[in-house]
Amino acid sequence: MSNLVLKGDIVFTPDKDSFKSYKDHYLVAEEGRVVGIFSSLPVEYQSYPIKDYSGKLIIPGFVDIHLHAPQYPNRGLGLDKELIPWLNTYTFPEEAKYHDLDYAERVYTSLINDLWRYGTTSCVIFSSIHKESTKLLMDLFIDSNLRAYVGKVNMDRNTPPELCEDTEKSLLDTEEIILEYKDKSPLVKPIITPRFVPTCSKELMEGLGKLAIKYNVAVQSHLSENRDEVDWVKNLHPDLEDYASVYNVYNLFGQTKTIMAHCIYNTPEELDLMEKNRVFAAHCPHSNYNLSSGIMPVRKFLDRNIPVGLGSDVSGGHDLSIPRTMVAAIQASKMKWLNTNKGLKPLTSSEAFYLGTKGGGSFFGKVGSFEEGYSLDALVVDDAKLGVKDDLSLEERVQRFIYIGDDRNIVERYVEGKRVDMPYRQNIPTMV
Amino acid sequence: MSNLVLKGDIVFTPDKDSFKSYKDHYLVAEEGRVVGIFSSLPVEYQSYPIKDYSGKLIIPGFVDIHLHAPQYPNRGLGLDKELIPWLNTYTFPEEAKYHDLDYAERVYTSLINDLWRYGTTSCVIFSSIHKESTKLLMDLFIDSNLRAYVGKVNMDRNTPPELCEDTEKSLLDTEEIILEYKDKSPLVKPIITPRFVPTCSKELMEGLGKLAIKYNVAVQSHLSENRDEVDWVKNLHPDLEDYASVYNVYNLFGQTKTIMAHCIYNTPEELDLMEKNRVFAAHCPHSNYNLSSGIMPVRKFLDRNIPVGLGSDVSGGHDLSIPRTMVAAIQASKMKWLNTNKGLKPLTSSEAFYLGTKGGGSFFGKVGSFEEGYSLDALVVDDAKLGVKDDLSLEERVQRFIYIGDDRNIVERYVEGKRVDMPYRQNIPTMV
Repeated sequence: MSNLVLKGDIVFTPDKDSFKSYKDHYLVAEEGRVVGIFSSLPVEYQSYPIKDYSGKLIIPGFVDIHLHAPQYPNRGLGLDKELIPWLNTYTFPEEAKYHDLDYAERVYTSLINDLWRYGTTSCVIFSSIHKESTKLLMDLFIDSNLRAYVGKVNMDRNTPPELCEDTEKSLLDTEEIILEYKDKSPLVKPIITPRFVPTCSKELMEGLGKLAIKYNVAVQSHLSENRDEVDWVKNLHPDLEDYASVYNVYNLFGQTKTIMAHCIYNTPEELDLMEKNRVFAAHCPHSNYNLSSGIMPVRKFLDRNIPVGLGSDVSGGHDLSIPRTMVAAIQASKMKWLNTNKGLKPLTSSEAFYLGTKGGGSFFGKVGSFEEGYSLDALVVDDAKLGVKDDLSLEERVQRFIYIGDDRNIVERYVEGKRVDMPYRQNIPTMV
Repeated sequence: MSNLVLKGDIVFTPDKDSFKSYKDHYLVAEEGRVVGIFSSLPVEYQSYPIKDYSGKLIIPGFVDIHLHAPQYPNRGLGLDKELIPWLNTYTFPEEAKYHDLDYAERVYTSLINDLWRYGTTSCVIFSSIHKESTKLLMDLFIDSNLRAYVGKVNMDRNTPPELCEDTEKSLLDTEEIILEYKDKSPLVKPIITPRFVPTCSKELMEGLGKLAIKYNVAVQSHLSENRDEVDWVKNLHPDLEDYASVYNVYNLFGQTKTIMAHCIYNTPEELDLMEKNRVFAAHCPHSNYNLSSGIMPVRKFLDRNIPVGLGSDVSGGHDLSIPRTMVAAIQASKMKWLNTNKGLKPLTSSEAFYLGTKGGGSFFGKVGSFEEGYSLDALVVDDAKLGVKDDLSLEERVQRFIYIGDDRNIVERYVEGKRVDMPYRQNIPTMV
């Protein structure tokens, strides 16, 4: 494992309320973990390799806790629809293609290259129902040296025939992946992934909850994205009081660490349960705009200390960029502030940055910050060409990069103290 | 003047309701104006120079009808505030610098390069109060071969001392610029620019209205961006029934062609007046999000056939990209749809594209479309690397470029049938 010193202008958010910044300091890591930040390099570390990025920003790698790998080719397409018709018209037909491993490899190498390009060093991702292409995606992530939770999707009701699984086979395939991958890599892990309540029978959810507990595996799904979806769940489970309770009775709601995407229309009781069970909310503002879903009241979650991270939600979200997702989250929170008669305070820049780094990163453990003991997952940002103004504070430079920079400004990526190069040279990058 | 043939996949919006697309066709221009689109090149045009862009998209150049040149260095900074405090804390201090022509040249060459880079071939822009740097900006636009209306800002009340003009001098400087530039260039024109009612005395507005009519010069300003601003105007002009009426009584509201930016909180009577006077509304969704202003009910304007275009509103808006402004406009209209109990229909992709091309372009005359007689202002877009999907319609390819492409996909820019190269080689581009 690697010892390393990065020198430059270091900025991160140990808590959501403010940036911590260190101009022209040394960030020291041992065996991939941060040991400290120093204005001059202590003698005991002077033997470590030093990377000099003086004048450049060094920030935590970005964390995307909700996106769908097989939807990558659909980015920017079909966004004139709401959730359910969008699923049926655009998403499900695309996801049905992933029995084809060659097609899956083309898409997934392109996606992983672009995650690297945008500085997303950690992600929590949905695959499709297909076991083999899910394994392929996990192996591609392992080769990339990026950090990921990857979930084979489970669905056995209310889906088109080509995506409707046999319940027992769905559970067996899921268990096979768990057994094969739970200890295969320190960076890439399986995650149990019921698509959402409407497409999962009680038997399937019950079986998945048992697997989660038996192997202590994480869980991800969707919750209260759209009013029609919430009504649908109510009709499917009239005996249970709310959407969250359905997951909860099947041990899919925080019994092991859990992410729920969207969380726009939760009841106070559902928020109580998320708070009690430490369920993560994945805030996906671009997707919530594009599918006319609504605006998540993220301030309510922060006020209750419910853990929150950001999700690009490709391809409901069109944009893989976590910085642009931070901007969308700030903008959405400002509209929510107006719509609540200035009741729910807008997100600040440091809060949005926190959500896209340590907020989502904490799902992985000590990820998304440069505090002692945190994994050295870092981006080096050259912001010299972002403007003619040179009298900015480090916080202002980070804010400017978040608002107007892009992948071209990211010159290096590190995960656990190791530099990560573009994973798939043979793949034609999507964006260059 | 130039005759020219462009060959490729041609897409534009003659009206807002649908894209017109021609796969592998010839777009023919004589003396910079479109004469037709043909599947095979008629013999009478075969002597014209042919540019073969087969497989690439050919679309109208983008049009930005509201931005502030001297605010360019502030993009992405200070966006935790609302309009009035943001003006006082960030914007006015920056604008005060433009007595310095060297600073102005640094900023304005960078801005014009970036407009070129993003494919904005026409814009309507605010300068500062400074006469000399306004002339510099106009001369830089003339050299760039891009199309622009440029306005020296007028303000003589409720402003910091360093930006508060003497009323008579403000009018004399404005008239000097009009006389010097009204016939200087076919592409770059002066526009009368009272900043907004709160910063313009009655005498100033009266004098500017007289200049507008005397020289038949266009007008631009701001209208109903923020509730506090609307209340402020009401207090300043209790005798007049609304904000629009203040401009109107001083002949600054459609007596010559006029753009009003934002238009979020207009009364039905104000919309009646805009409709009657053919006043353009500049829709600036990013700015309206960033400054917590609100969401313009753009559907109301379209239903009344009030002319509407898009504005980046740099630096209230952080993003110079008109395609990303189109996406923000669609997203904002979807939130407005939800907030009006599904009363105001969301913008479609073709409507957003229309607003960012022909909608704003019509302020310049026959600009923003490829119909016969329109100026050949075109972008050539190489979208081959935007995804692994190759079975898309031309409309889907344009939609995908708008959502996930960027300046790297734009390989050529044309204005009035002439190719435009990067204006200022000596300037370090902001984004590369």
